Amino acid sequence: MAATADRQYRYYWEDFHIGETRVLGSVTPTREETLDFARQFDPQPFHLDDEAAAGSMFGRLSASGWHTCAMAMRLMVDGFLNETASLGSPGMDNIKWLKPVYPGDTLTLKLTVVESRPMKSRPDVGLVRSVTALFNQDGDQVLHMEGFGMYRRRVHGQYAAPTSAD
Amino acid sequence: MAATADRQYRYYWEDFHIGETRVLGSVTPTREETLDFARQFDPQPFHLDDEAAAGSMFGRLSASGWHTCAMAMRLMVDGFLNETASLGSPGMDNIKWLKPVYPGDTLTLKLTVVESRPMKSRPDVGLVRSVTALFNQDGDQVLHMEGFGMYRRRVHGQYAAPTSAD
Repeated sequence: MAATADRQYRYYWEDFHIGETRVLGSVTPTREETLDFARQFDPQPFHLDDEAAAGSMFGRLSASGWHTCAMAMRLMVDGFLNETASLGSPGMDNIKWLKPVYPGDTLTLKLTVVESRPMKSRPDVGLVRSVTALFNQDGDQVLHMEGFGMYRRRVHGQYAAPTSAD
Repeated sequence: MAATADRQYRYYWEDFHIGETRVLGSVTPTREETLDFARQFDPQPFHLDDEAAAGSMFGRLSASGWHTCAMAMRLMVDGFLNETASLGSPGMDNIKWLKPVYPGDTLTLKLTVVESRPMKSRPDVGLVRSVTALFNQDGDQVLHMEGFGMYRRRVHGQYAAPTSAD
């Protein structure tokens, strides 16, 4: 849910600390899921067909890079965003598909906070820049990406009265 | 299909020219498609629920930013990649979700080539950097992203004999 003043969340902007790394769960895409995504969004033969894949740089059927990003998003939603006063993201930088992702691979997400600052134009919102990494079951990193998230602040004069702890 | 020496494609690395812009078709996501993607990959309430969306910065139910990227990919595959000796992409930069995408919006993709060079480590491959932009039916840009594609070269001493035209 979009953060509103009348709902309480577990995490707010203040709960993200620079340098902190969280391991946020794992996902194992099936062959059928891999094919489903490719049919909808990335129907290149090396994502759809075993023979074409065998002749490609990937060696065998692999997931669309966008499927890998989408799976990372799901791990972030389940891992913390749905308990967080999140207001979305303006974008992502530096996406690197470092190795192919194959059906049956188990991908584990690590999120590292690298920057945190209040949003100048909105005193009730803070920005957090994080690095998202996915590793497969062999420990090889398959995805790197970076980006800002916008989070509501826990205590902000404009919307909430200071508590006695302030 | 991954490019191999024995298949002919319509487009190779040499067919991408710096400064060239191509309009590559349109897509109109339905409400059900928007919800399907969100349920699978981005189940935040503002992508799933009308009431939560109404209370969010987006104002009403909107597509996951990753869904928007995936739709752009599909337009690129249908628009040129499946006729191109494409070898995939190492990654994307500078993804900006500039405006919300709503179910029923019609999104049109424009691709502009901004850089082109041979790949140093592989004389049979060239790199093309392009800017991808999606515009909605009101002419508002909703997505910006940049990235390199790897394409097989049309004439390369290592794999193909020069033709008489050389």
